Amino acid sequence: MSASRLWTSGALHELSRQECRELLQSHPVGRVAFVTGEGPVVLPVNFLLVRDAVVFRTSAHGSVGRQIDGRRAAFEVDEIDEFTQSGWSVLVRGTASFVDSVDDLPEEDRPSSWAQGVRSLFVRIPLEDVTGRRLLPA
Amino acid sequence: MSASRLWTSGALHELSRQECRELLQSHPVGRVAFVTGEGPVVLPVNFLLVRDAVVFRTSAHGSVGRQIDGRRAAFEVDEIDEFTQSGWSVLVRGTASFVDSVDDLPEEDRPSSWAQGVRSLFVRIPLEDVTGRRLLPA
Repeated sequence: MSASRLWTSGALHELSRQECRELLQSHPVGRVAFVTGEGPVVLPVNFLLVRDAVVFRTSAHGSVGRQIDGRRAAFEVDEIDEFTQSGWSVLVRGTASFVDSVDDLPEEDRPSSWAQGVRSLFVRIPLEDVTGRRLLPA
Repeated sequence: MSASRLWTSGALHELSRQECRELLQSHPVGRVAFVTGEGPVVLPVNFLLVRDAVVFRTSAHGSVGRQIDGRRAAFEVDEIDEFTQSGWSVLVRGTASFVDSVDDLPEEDRPSSWAQGVRSLFVRIPLEDVTGRRLLPA
């Protein structure tokens, strides 16, 4: 990297847990990551923040539904401005589990599915570990 | 999900490898996923598509630099329109490695770093497996 490029790169700041929660609450789409036999997978999903967990729905027959229950998972939300080369990201890490009964979730806490098809499983990733950072414009 | 919500959800289509490449080429920022002792991690980075690999730079002292070399990794790029609840995503999977010598990369194939700090390592994730899907508006 040339000196001039270094000079114009932006500063990274850690976000507080409260800031991370607010950003999670303000965004409908994030990316879930989980680990398969061939390594990690990342897929976008729409979600809701329900108390201390991220909740999204999936199909019982897809890769998420078959592989995520009881396993370590991550959930990422971000917003990047390509023009100013700045933005923020929040990373949630926790052990994913299915919601046993949909009755455990009040109607307003049930995310709808943006994609067609039966997505009867609700997956919950608790906010066991939440970190975030903001990249300021240079 | 109510019948009316099902009725208005959008159709998912698989993207070809060529479409995936074009989308990777048109976007400067993606998300790298790798696996640590506490499960997967997802972090946004700016990158370049260099021939058959995603290339980004990182610090030798951060979590990516310490843990990604020689391990399975994923790289995700997406674009989501919250209003129409539609968009696309591309997922690259491969075994990550450091570029041995920066001289192996022509100047135009070296991504700059948007964030401050010395990021002397170039990480390469080959397009071993590339999949993508498009969610059409309902």
